[in-house]
Amino acid sequence: MSRSLKTALCVLAVMAMSGNRGEAQTPESALMVRIAEIEVDVRFAKEYAAALTEEADMSVRLEPGVIAIFPMHQGQEPTLIRIIEIYADRAAYESHLTSPHFLKYKATTLKMVKSLKLVEMHALDTSAMTQIFAKMRAAR
Amino acid sequence: MSRSLKTALCVLAVMAMSGNRGEAQTPESALMVRIAEIEVDVRFAKEYAAALTEEADMSVRLEPGVIAIFPMHQGQEPTLIRIIEIYADRAAYESHLTSPHFLKYKATTLKMVKSLKLVEMHALDTSAMTQIFAKMRAAR
Repeated sequence: MSRSLKTALCVLAVMAMSGNRGEAQTPESALMVRIAEIEVDVRFAKEYAAALTEEADMSVRLEPGVIAIFPMHQGQEPTLIRIIEIYADRAAYESHLTSPHFLKYKATTLKMVKSLKLVEMHALDTSAMTQIFAKMRAAR
Repeated sequence: MSRSLKTALCVLAVMAMSGNRGEAQTPESALMVRIAEIEVDVRFAKEYAAALTEEADMSVRLEPGVIAIFPMHQGQEPTLIRIIEIYADRAAYESHLTSPHFLKYKATTLKMVKSLKLVEMHALDTSAMTQIFAKMRAAR
């Protein structure tokens, strides 16, 4: 059985168990979307990337309301980081701020970060996200 | 049957029919990710949003290699646009540039755009995307 098929079966099982709960709790209009722009001290570029990758992984894996934390760097520049963050709603974001893995990341990386800018975003068309989710499903 | 369950069953059917094709054609390392930053003339803010929404919708719907075109505006400012774009690979992006809906969008909006900056991004950890896709599946 392919990995895609296995994943889909797991998702199906979880959905079947939880019914419509996910849909009811996460209307698209409540989504909180943000782009974090971070400049990292070049001496800590690798160490920072490892800490951020771990934090993103744990957040998406352990927190139901953290839909995406997707860390990237710009072009060939490992010190210029952008993170796309999608939370189910503001409560999910506030809960994330108190999670052990976020607090550990924050404490570990404080000395590595030269600047941090948080850009709040709003979808032009929230129905676009549904379509993109469907496309991502099909592409995996 | 819930909408989530129906969607999951459709996805499952598509995956079963296509086998591993999607995976083989779209290795995560080939993904092209970009953030477009656009400033729009305030006189055309609504008209621009409509044109962009239509173009994003058609691209994701009609082009297999366009995984996501997700248009947003910053904070309360409808003239400051950012678009997260994810293409399966560079060939998919180049094909997108010749699509009728992209060419129509470009011609229509040329006079509305004050500035355009394209920021090429690279995932810190490409496996993060797999996890996020799975989370998005579960959240829908």
